Amino acid sequence: MQILHTSPSADGFSMPAEFEPHQGCLMIWPERTDSWRCGGWPARNAFVQIASAIAMSECLTVLVSCAQYETARTMLPPNVRLIEMSTDDAWARDTCPTFLRSRDKKTIRGVDWGFNAWGGLEDGLYFPWDLDNHVARKVCDLFQIDTYDCRDFILEGGSIHSNGAGTIITTKSCLCSKGRNSDLTQAEIEDKLCDYLGAKKVLWLPRGIVNDETNEHVDNICAFTAPDQVVLAWTDNTDDPQYPLSKACEEYLSQQTDALGRNIQVIRLPIPSKPICITDAECKQLNLWNGMLTRTPGERLAASYVNFYITNDSVLVPQFDDPMDETACSILKRAFPSRKIVPIPAREILLGGGNIHCITQQIPQTS
Amino acid sequence: MQILHTSPSADGFSMPAEFEPHQGCLMIWPERTDSWRCGGWPARNAFVQIASAIAMSECLTVLVSCAQYETARTMLPPNVRLIEMSTDDAWARDTCPTFLRSRDKKTIRGVDWGFNAWGGLEDGLYFPWDLDNHVARKVCDLFQIDTYDCRDFILEGGSIHSNGAGTIITTKSCLCSKGRNSDLTQAEIEDKLCDYLGAKKVLWLPRGIVNDETNEHVDNICAFTAPDQVVLAWTDNTDDPQYPLSKACEEYLSQQTDALGRNIQVIRLPIPSKPICITDAECKQLNLWNGMLTRTPGERLAASYVNFYITNDSVLVPQFDDPMDETACSILKRAFPSRKIVPIPAREILLGGGNIHCITQQIPQTS
Repeated sequence: MQILHTSPSADGFSMPAEFEPHQGCLMIWPERTDSWRCGGWPARNAFVQIASAIAMSECLTVLVSCAQYETARTMLPPNVRLIEMSTDDAWARDTCPTFLRSRDKKTIRGVDWGFNAWGGLEDGLYFPWDLDNHVARKVCDLFQIDTYDCRDFILEGGSIHSNGAGTIITTKSCLCSKGRNSDLTQAEIEDKLCDYLGAKKVLWLPRGIVNDETNEHVDNICAFTAPDQVVLAWTDNTDDPQYPLSKACEEYLSQQTDALGRNIQVIRLPIPSKPICITDAECKQLNLWNGMLTRTPGERLAASYVNFYITNDSVLVPQFDDPMDETACSILKRAFPSRKIVPIPAREILLGGGNIHCITQQIPQTS
Repeated sequence: MQILHTSPSADGFSMPAEFEPHQGCLMIWPERTDSWRCGGWPARNAFVQIASAIAMSECLTVLVSCAQYETARTMLPPNVRLIEMSTDDAWARDTCPTFLRSRDKKTIRGVDWGFNAWGGLEDGLYFPWDLDNHVARKVCDLFQIDTYDCRDFILEGGSIHSNGAGTIITTKSCLCSKGRNSDLTQAEIEDKLCDYLGAKKVLWLPRGIVNDETNEHVDNICAFTAPDQVVLAWTDNTDDPQYPLSKACEEYLSQQTDALGRNIQVIRLPIPSKPICITDAECKQLNLWNGMLTRTPGERLAASYVNFYITNDSVLVPQFDDPMDETACSILKRAFPSRKIVPIPAREILLGGGNIHCITQQIPQTS
């Protein structure tokens, strides 16, 4: 593995869309008991269900601590590759590399962004985060691909989506947050994204999902379903605090084109019909962090059907035991007509602070 | 990765000879300061030299602790793959799987032997050894090959050599030691070896190298250079305590044939001309283990040129700054005429208790 300090854009590398073919996928085994209730066991069962679904159509590698290796090996199907790696938590989307592909599609490389637990000492979610910050480089080493060193720039994979044709979508609330790259202007951040993702244009949604503790990652509110089409988390309830946020995003997108000048078609994807909140009992099943509760009883969680994962032949859609579950699946079936829609109960992942997309990271196929 | 409980022999799998083609090799980064003097730094430099030489002709994967990952990444060449894995020490030969190949040479599998640090609580060399005992399975997972569970039988890779044609060579002093499988008779151990290595015959050398703390592993005294040819560590000095041991081995071999009924041609490979001993200063540079010295000043080390590693196009030969260094290389050049002989200063590895063969494990090529 070469550690590169050149420009991915100048080298002819760019980030494919998630809906393009994958050679594989990465996940991380959940373990920390202040993120995952009941010592992590309910989350592990949910992760196993997701891992099993992914492994049906792409090569899945799961990273696991030394302590949990044998447990994970026993719980995961044999066709999942299990690799020991030290991490601070289980958010593969945010700590694994962003994978780029060369113009001729023959080579992939990774980008190793700086990681500071979604805001560092300003408003980050845990400390320390040094193990997570080393994951991307180690993953590139594992896959024997070269890696771009971009550790001086803080970015999580969940804060960007690519349409695979020169356009990146992100949220201003996250990328311009005080805890990330506050020494850079929005224009400088945009230059960095274009340079390291081989992109020509960045779309800046103003906001994300209410109470999303990542400073509102884009992958919870909006995702490309085609190069010029997105799904956007939506509510018709004007009294819901999510309404003005989704409305602002929709208005922004209606005035934008992608890097090739195409209008962006927006498909509204409803949020659950009622707020999904953590119960008092669930809060008590979380270990304290540094003497403090990591969640407040009754707290509204950032539940969104947009946080799905697109495999080579299916879309894994989070389900919240809500009447909108089926509606969301129907809309996504129309957006992904060639793929099977796989509904997956996701409350346990949501309780940890993210969803199916947050715990996965695709590796593009080479030709 | 499937964990198999069937018989490798019945499944048509057997252990190739080391001189057959490799798809790769494994090493483990040295770290423990009671094995490696001066905090491990001199050993690391020696390991890097060996890793660099191996990586010139086969794909080398080095396993490293989380703590040492960045250091190792900086010191090792970019064409070496570096993988985080927790271990108790750096003896890849003894803790990595023994690799088997199918009859059609298309598939490889690993054997996951029990490991108890060369003798467990009886006369083992460190405690605990649980991390080492998990290495073989994790390595099979990494390479996505199925693994035979043979953890109820204690064996280290350094205690066996295969001629690739049905014959295994080992030492009785090691395999019949009290600290390994003392509940089994020699005949039962032989059955186990034949079953798990796909062999028809086991050659039992009586002894190994004087002061070899592994209970005299075969890989320090005798190695196949062809299916019916071995090199045997030798001294003409009848006063040397090694003399009767080597003599007994030579006499044994002169009366044996391999599994195909061929006589075994024995090539004498001299030991260094004078005993190689640890100095007082070197002893003081080792950390204590549990309050005790791990070596005695002046202690004779088990130096042997037989502990070489055969790569696809070279033989890496330990050197001890001794007049016999060149003689050993000349003899090995005649035994391996198609391969380059690469002499490598090996005192730092010897001080840790083994040599080049002990810190490597080849992965056979598939076709």
